[in-house]
Amino acid sequence: MVFAKTPKKDYYACIFSSIRTSEYNEEYNKMADEMDELAKSQDGYLGIESTRNDHSRFGITVSYWESLNSIKNWKDNSNHKIAQKFGITNWYEHYEIRICQVKYSYSKETQK
Amino acid sequence: MVFAKTPKKDYYACIFSSIRTSEYNEEYNKMADEMDELAKSQDGYLGIESTRNDHSRFGITVSYWESLNSIKNWKDNSNHKIAQKFGITNWYEHYEIRICQVKYSYSKETQK
Repeated sequence: MVFAKTPKKDYYACIFSSIRTSEYNEEYNKMADEMDELAKSQDGYLGIESTRNDHSRFGITVSYWESLNSIKNWKDNSNHKIAQKFGITNWYEHYEIRICQVKYSYSKETQK
Repeated sequence: MVFAKTPKKDYYACIFSSIRTSEYNEEYNKMADEMDELAKSQDGYLGIESTRNDHSRFGITVSYWESLNSIKNWKDNSNHKIAQKFGITNWYEHYEIRICQVKYSYSKETQK
């Protein structure tokens, strides 16, 4: 399942856009899996959508949350903070994070 | 340049998550380039970030806009509407679109 199941509106999205360095693939993949699992266990977690192009190494991960507070708690999670440090030093050439409120949504089915 | 240059907050994001069908690659790529150019010429356009994994065919494109109205105008653009029809019939197995207000943002540099 690559699409997140989310409400129609009034929830929050964390858009994480990043370029991976060309190194540390094994440790990165291991930690990415661990962070996926850890995020799922957090209060207010709704779902995640993530993809990366192997050639450009540019990826976008969007995680969905019930509130701004649940996003703040996830950012401050102590194990997540360790991963963030490796992200800054080893894994990402650059990243941008944008925290958003979802105002409305639709899908292929609802747009037809 | 893969990252969009955007303000700190108070702008809008359109998150478009999709799975491509395995067909129509040539016509899809041509139209995708045309739509990128057309989007850039729209009032209120701020930037775009886009990536797709070649194996899973799962992609995320986030376009950034000054207002909800500029997103609505882009959705209603007549040439974009033609592309949307091909998207539904030929190019995407499924997609989800979420329209969001960016509340705050940070980057690798500002998080250090």
